[in-house]
Amino acid sequence: MLNVYDQLKKLNIKLPAASAPASAYVMSAQVGKTIFLSGHIAQKNGKIWSGKLGDTISTEEGRWAARSIAIDLIATLHAHLDDLNRVQRIVKVMSLVNSTPDFVEQHLVTNEASELFIAVFGERGKHARSAFGVTQIPLGACMEIELIAIAE
Amino acid sequence: MLNVYDQLKKLNIKLPAASAPASAYVMSAQVGKTIFLSGHIAQKNGKIWSGKLGDTISTEEGRWAARSIAIDLIATLHAHLDDLNRVQRIVKVMSLVNSTPDFVEQHLVTNEASELFIAVFGERGKHARSAFGVTQIPLGACMEIELIAIAE
Amino acid sequence: MLNVYDQLKKLNIKLPAASAPASAYVMSAQVGKTIFLSGHIAQKNGKIWSGKLGDTISTEEGRWAARSIAIDLIATLHAHLDDLNRVQRIVKVMSLVNSTPDFVEQHLVTNEASELFIAVFGERGKHARSAFGVTQIPLGACMEIELIAIAE
Repeated sequence: MLNVYDQLKKLNIKLPAASAPASAYVMSAQVGKTIFLSGHIAQKNGKIWSGKLGDTISTEEGRWAARSIAIDLIATLHAHLDDLNRVQRIVKVMSLVNSTPDFVEQHLVTNEASELFIAVFGERGKHARSAFGVTQIPLGACMEIELIAIAE
Repeated sequence: MLNVYDQLKKLNIKLPAASAPASAYVMSAQVGKTIFLSGHIAQKNGKIWSGKLGDTISTEEGRWAARSIAIDLIATLHAHLDDLNRVQRIVKVMSLVNSTPDFVEQHLVTNEASELFIAVFGERGKHARSAFGVTQIPLGACMEIELIAIAE
Repeated sequence: MLNVYDQLKKLNIKLPAASAPASAYVMSAQVGKTIFLSGHIAQKNGKIWSGKLGDTISTEEGRWAARSIAIDLIATLHAHLDDLNRVQRIVKVMSLVNSTPDFVEQHLVTNEASELFIAVFGERGKHARSAFGVTQIPLGACMEIELIAIAE
């Protein structure tokens, strides 16, 4: 079976420190085998990656933001589980794209995150997904992604 | 116990072929008994059903779009399970309505999907639900609905 | 172990009657130990609490709306379980804030709900969370919150 850390190395991804919640909640909550990860907002060089798709953020930049959040989500999973090889399935992703009323490429932006999960977790990374445009995101971030994973 | 296929026949509903994902994800992901269905976007005659409630799409048209997505979701469940009578519960629905800032009838539009689930699955179709207005949906679709079902 | 009803008393909270669904769905659906609560919309004195953050509703008012919905969600859980001490975990919260395209304090507004869950349920109230701005909410309500809880 594929080793998640080998995959991360091949992709030249170094996991950042796991995010801390901005307020009165936790970044991950597990009951039984199901782990709910809080919505993670886009960051760049340790600061909020703010802006709006269709206006100040291009689809290409959005893809990088999505990839960056996916890495942060994996870092939170690593902090939660200690061993990412215990992930049985990335089962559900919800991707919120800070969008103008005319921007319709939320799926293209989100693909970068989806593809990273599959590159890192293989078959275990294949997830159901919803992606859509929202009016705003806390602190003006350009994207927010939440995730449900199942642990062994 | 009610037979789901008899109900579909009574309602004169023929299930379409299950949708294929537009990108790097799957339309349904199951772990244990829980099946997560991806957000399905509205289609009409095999094309994206685009537009915005409160602007180019009326509440009445929105109800037809919601019904159409509900049928697509049932088609995906049929493809996933082989036998819809194995559905123990349609437990949760999230309905995203592509809305202007002034449109406030997301619940009326979504009712058409909710009522169809109950008509088809009976008591097993009674679900918790959130419905709300979003800024945009991939490819400009007028609605997107995701669903969680439990299988026997 | 902390008694939830003692906590409610200390906080001087009287649970209202549980909400009835506005249409073809249920306010709570349980399968196994998992309880999905429908999105509850903000109410004030028995009427819809309408308005938009960034426009007609201030962040401070939004906090009161969030607190009010959290109390309604607890009332629904009480009606569902008969005994709130059976709540093993408030595991996931999704908070939808009716926002202008410029309002970026969805997290501050939502904190009031998150803090109430922790005040009432203690460690069992610590949840994963997503909060974001939406274009509209049914009937023009200023906020909508849904919740997943686990029962013993």
